[in-house]
Amino acid sequence: MSRPSTRPSTRPSGRAPDELRSTDFDLHISKWAEGACLVSTGDTRVLVTASVEEGVPAFMRNSGRGWLTAEYGMLPRATDTRGAREAAKGRQSGRTLEIQRLIGRALRAGVDLSLLGERQIKIDCDVIQADGGTRTASIVGASVAVRQALDHLLTLELIAQDPMPELVMAVSCGLYQGQALLDLDYREDSRADVDANFVMTASGELIEVQGTAEERPFPRRDLLAMLDLAEQGCAELAQRALRALGKV
Amino acid sequence: MSRPSTRPSTRPSGRAPDELRSTDFDLHISKWAEGACLVSTGDTRVLVTASVEEGVPAFMRNSGRGWLTAEYGMLPRATDTRGAREAAKGRQSGRTLEIQRLIGRALRAGVDLSLLGERQIKIDCDVIQADGGTRTASIVGASVAVRQALDHLLTLELIAQDPMPELVMAVSCGLYQGQALLDLDYREDSRADVDANFVMTASGELIEVQGTAEERPFPRRDLLAMLDLAEQGCAELAQRALRALGKV
Amino acid sequence: MSRPSTRPSTRPSGRAPDELRSTDFDLHISKWAEGACLVSTGDTRVLVTASVEEGVPAFMRNSGRGWLTAEYGMLPRATDTRGAREAAKGRQSGRTLEIQRLIGRALRAGVDLSLLGERQIKIDCDVIQADGGTRTASIVGASVAVRQALDHLLTLELIAQDPMPELVMAVSCGLYQGQALLDLDYREDSRADVDANFVMTASGELIEVQGTAEERPFPRRDLLAMLDLAEQGCAELAQRALRALGKV
Amino acid sequence: MSRPSTRPSTRPSGRAPDELRSTDFDLHISKWAEGACLVSTGDTRVLVTASVEEGVPAFMRNSGRGWLTAEYGMLPRATDTRGAREAAKGRQSGRTLEIQRLIGRALRAGVDLSLLGERQIKIDCDVIQADGGTRTASIVGASVAVRQALDHLLTLELIAQDPMPELVMAVSCGLYQGQALLDLDYREDSRADVDANFVMTASGELIEVQGTAEERPFPRRDLLAMLDLAEQGCAELAQRALRALGKV
Amino acid sequence: MSRPSTRPSTRPSGRAPDELRSTDFDLHISKWAEGACLVSTGDTRVLVTASVEEGVPAFMRNSGRGWLTAEYGMLPRATDTRGAREAAKGRQSGRTLEIQRLIGRALRAGVDLSLLGERQIKIDCDVIQADGGTRTASIVGASVAVRQALDHLLTLELIAQDPMPELVMAVSCGLYQGQALLDLDYREDSRADVDANFVMTASGELIEVQGTAEERPFPRRDLLAMLDLAEQGCAELAQRALRALGKV
Amino acid sequence: MSRPSTRPSTRPSGRAPDELRSTDFDLHISKWAEGACLVSTGDTRVLVTASVEEGVPAFMRNSGRGWLTAEYGMLPRATDTRGAREAAKGRQSGRTLEIQRLIGRALRAGVDLSLLGERQIKIDCDVIQADGGTRTASIVGASVAVRQALDHLLTLELIAQDPMPELVMAVSCGLYQGQALLDLDYREDSRADVDANFVMTASGELIEVQGTAEERPFPRRDLLAMLDLAEQGCAELAQRALRALGKV
Repeated sequence: MSRPSTRPSTRPSGRAPDELRSTDFDLHISKWAEGACLVSTGDTRVLVTASVEEGVPAFMRNSGRGWLTAEYGMLPRATDTRGAREAAKGRQSGRTLEIQRLIGRALRAGVDLSLLGERQIKIDCDVIQADGGTRTASIVGASVAVRQALDHLLTLELIAQDPMPELVMAVSCGLYQGQALLDLDYREDSRADVDANFVMTASGELIEVQGTAEERPFPRRDLLAMLDLAEQGCAELAQRALRALGKV
Repeated sequence: MSRPSTRPSTRPSGRAPDELRSTDFDLHISKWAEGACLVSTGDTRVLVTASVEEGVPAFMRNSGRGWLTAEYGMLPRATDTRGAREAAKGRQSGRTLEIQRLIGRALRAGVDLSLLGERQIKIDCDVIQADGGTRTASIVGASVAVRQALDHLLTLELIAQDPMPELVMAVSCGLYQGQALLDLDYREDSRADVDANFVMTASGELIEVQGTAEERPFPRRDLLAMLDLAEQGCAELAQRALRALGKV
Repeated sequence: MSRPSTRPSTRPSGRAPDELRSTDFDLHISKWAEGACLVSTGDTRVLVTASVEEGVPAFMRNSGRGWLTAEYGMLPRATDTRGAREAAKGRQSGRTLEIQRLIGRALRAGVDLSLLGERQIKIDCDVIQADGGTRTASIVGASVAVRQALDHLLTLELIAQDPMPELVMAVSCGLYQGQALLDLDYREDSRADVDANFVMTASGELIEVQGTAEERPFPRRDLLAMLDLAEQGCAELAQRALRALGKV
Repeated sequence: MSRPSTRPSTRPSGRAPDELRSTDFDLHISKWAEGACLVSTGDTRVLVTASVEEGVPAFMRNSGRGWLTAEYGMLPRATDTRGAREAAKGRQSGRTLEIQRLIGRALRAGVDLSLLGERQIKIDCDVIQADGGTRTASIVGASVAVRQALDHLLTLELIAQDPMPELVMAVSCGLYQGQALLDLDYREDSRADVDANFVMTASGELIEVQGTAEERPFPRRDLLAMLDLAEQGCAELAQRALRALGKV
Repeated sequence: MSRPSTRPSTRPSGRAPDELRSTDFDLHISKWAEGACLVSTGDTRVLVTASVEEGVPAFMRNSGRGWLTAEYGMLPRATDTRGAREAAKGRQSGRTLEIQRLIGRALRAGVDLSLLGERQIKIDCDVIQADGGTRTASIVGASVAVRQALDHLLTLELIAQDPMPELVMAVSCGLYQGQALLDLDYREDSRADVDANFVMTASGELIEVQGTAEERPFPRRDLLAMLDLAEQGCAELAQRALRALGKV
Repeated sequence: MSRPSTRPSTRPSGRAPDELRSTDFDLHISKWAEGACLVSTGDTRVLVTASVEEGVPAFMRNSGRGWLTAEYGMLPRATDTRGAREAAKGRQSGRTLEIQRLIGRALRAGVDLSLLGERQIKIDCDVIQADGGTRTASIVGASVAVRQALDHLLTLELIAQDPMPELVMAVSCGLYQGQALLDLDYREDSRADVDANFVMTASGELIEVQGTAEERPFPRRDLLAMLDLAEQGCAELAQRALRALGKV
């Protein structure tokens, strides 16, 4: 199947079907954290920190390996209508738990924990403003923050070898009026028939694929069309992130 | 890529790479529920009920549409080592919430809720014994239980048209020593490099795809190999389920 | 007071006043647990497992004695109307806590914990289907599952002497239209004036007596009439359980 | 079996086997409540209030009947060693729930709720100091507080007929070194082989019987010996309570 | 600004503006606690215990210093309308947490923890009856209970030097119709424009000042007028407390 | 007492005793909220939104008045050492509840709720980075965000008259080595002997005063010295806030 980019766009945002939103990486947003990044993709803004702590959870002690987890939250007024504060409700929603499990899993797959020593990286992703794609923006921001934290450990010679050779990138795709679209904003996402999230390395290997039919089942070719878009999008996002990090 | 079934099997269970476990559907396990099924796939056993309740949640009232949700649980000694009872801990784990959200989403995509009237189907999936694949077995059992509940509503003429033309099936696949395998048991699942779950209609349309790299990223061709296996597996499972329901 | 069995029955179930429901013990229901039993009394079905764990809670450490506790739960659709899942509500009800405390207390009174070594037996009673008498059925099933677990420990020579010389049995009685009845089903229980549960050894010694007036106070002679029925019922249940265990 | 009172006492408190502890009822301890009582039995002191509220819970609305519930708590330093505050722990223990369910059930059995109108009596029992028998002292105090609250409603002519013709009394018994004892204090209770609580009307009818073997099963005759003591004890307690209320 | 005591009183209670309520300290209310006191100020009654425990929380271990914390609660019917029991609701309110933090902070400022050894004093303040000023009455009662507990430790020679040379006192003030008032009861408090609480040593040094505008901002001179009243009130309360302790 | 500003500074930050930190107000940080502000004072940064919702809580319905509440949170890595996420712990700390109650109270005292109509303003204060004074910075930011939200309502003519004639300002003071200091950063705050927070109108009227001795009691003159500093500081802060709002 060919790339859909030459077809005229009918998507609500007016972007081409394979066009990413603009992105921005602000790396100077934390006085304290070992790695930190305010990532913006379109109007979605996520503040991500990576905190390094010596020691690992009890179940991993004396394994010689490190560990990495993530937590996710959304400020109450990150959305059009104010949502309830999860700390006040006394429990995190299923959606929140699902997203933070995804972020942790994605980064663990891209980091060789045996090179980290018995220390732990805790990622915090807090959505300041939401306009679609907060979970993929969180993974992109987490990747940048972890990169900084690992550089910090390498500089201090606390670790000898880089545990993350490639950045872990993520992007959403959707099926809208029969056409595969890259990087949906909230308005597009809420009208899409299929909603998919892809986590990939910069070189296009898969880390996680999640595709969900919203209204009715969809054929295999639609999955493949979205996969094409995601490969291209993740490669482009990796370039932008590396530029922000001053690595290219 | 061709089907892997002719290669000699090296999988721990000794089954062929594309061979499902044996399945059993016991439909006579509840005196009370509108639909109920004890589904067994290999040593995994899940008790599923579908409860029909008049009325819908507040946010859907006066929409003329129905609703469907699912809850999932595992008995403490369903596994080799006894796990803590979630009711005693006072919260459901992230894993539990993630699975029950998946089951509900999967069935809602296969049921036309506009044909259900303002009533709700509540699915309960309780794992009696776990040996890998409890989430996909739950979806298969839920599909059978919902089928019974809908037949009950059709018989009573509470609904006029069948909201679920096809069964919703699900199966897990994995990548083990470079080979794609269908329907992993616990021993296989714990050693697999990639873990994937596919939800499909009997005719092979996709409802949900979830693939996760356990240790390192994987190429696109592995996703496609697993997708091939899943299509075949879901078609076979649909036949078995229809036979148990007396529909073929 | 004489036995009421010769008076014509007026009870809703049509059984004689001193007639137990049919019982069944399925001992092959768990691949994992040291002891396990699906006990059925009439339409009440409870799945019971006994899990043996090395070590005891902190407050008993270095006492040389073992410990035994029980947990109880009801599947949401075990009853006519679906009940809320306790794990989802985030707390066990007072009824649940009361029942699981009773089960644990009953079995501890029948097991000599000083012969168990510093290990713990955890009993899980999950009601698959409820039709009255779930707490007494749970105790009967727990007794059978603990018997299996202890036999397992004796066979492995982890313990030298049998800590449970007799089975612990339990049965409910009630007062219905002035007559004492044995082993009430749900329909009978909901109409009874007095509701009583008796836990006894096979030889008729008392472990726990609980009798409650539902509507108005009752005289001592009614308690004694129910106690007569319970002695007979527990002796008969012990015979059935021993037969199922292949001990007689 | 004859009354054990003529045998020489060997009980730790030095009291005769059938001798109650001294009791005191302070009726002037609340500026606000419709009924209130600080009941002391020996060193056990429970502050009880009965609060009358118009209206009943949703499940009873438009039934024309009233309702009555109870809550129970223990101040952290009511005992020798300070216990954790349940409000701070965030959940009531199984013991607390079990006791407050018993208190509510006991009083509901002694009050004709159809004479109360659609209003609710909420009983609060808070143990100021514990030395054994807090649940039975709570029931005795609740009976006195409810009596006051009902007199208040009768005086205001909000109800026409007295819904509680007799006081509901309660006392504990135990088996200590083979002898049945009445009204155990903490030191006696912690050494007893059998622990029993009896709730009765002043005229000796039974409302609740709970007897538990602590170490080993016990014969029926011991239950009857304790029942004899309890009948005598409840009759005596009713006299003391009526005197405190100025009713005799 | 001069003392307002010569102006004619217009306050609801009829007391002079600088007149404390009557107080009572009952020191014989606990069989168990190392320090205990039922403090009454007007109709407000708080039961306070001070429990001494060996050891300190983990974060202070091996510091050689002691620790002191407080917990606060209100019995459900301490007020005119019954409030929900916090243990049943499963969480302490913000008001409760705020008050118990204040009590702990106040006493820690008055006790030299380096003289206490590695032990902990836990204060429990339970409001039996509320009529305004429960937090200040709690501090006064806590001061008396801690005094007893320290005397107990000095007598046993577990500590060598008195860690609390002066009592910590507290009183509320308010602004009512433009006039500063001392020691408000509930009726006065609910109508006051400004509500202030002062914690002081007997000699008039400040430990905590909290003043809050209820309806509109207030000038500095009103704060000073209330501070004058509080100094006088705390000095008088300290005399009464020392008399009750037999120290003067 | 004279102003301390001419004495040479010994404070850790090197600022003069009466010198505020630099401040910044970013008003363009939310696409969604009716009022929003990222307030920075030194290295402390708080993101504040004011959300307007139609309707009031049940207890105020049909009063014709509006309502205003606040919630407060701190991102896990806002501090030097990562703190636990309150949503994950399942409860807000006492500190959090105390601060958000203060913020709500402060703003309610400055806003005439009878001019707001039956609508509610919900303030969210989320600390992005903490370096001392987060509660006072939250109040300053809330004041700016509420000002914006009220201007929005006035522009839409949903309210006729301005309910907040003056900004509500707040600043912390402390006593460090015997000298009163204005606007402490974290390093100063952690070494101060007295910690005080003042909430005031721009014109110097008091809304809330909170002063706490950290180590030992302090004399009245120290409170007054801090009050002098706070008056000056709040007036200056009000000027800066009005400039940011374009009101001067």
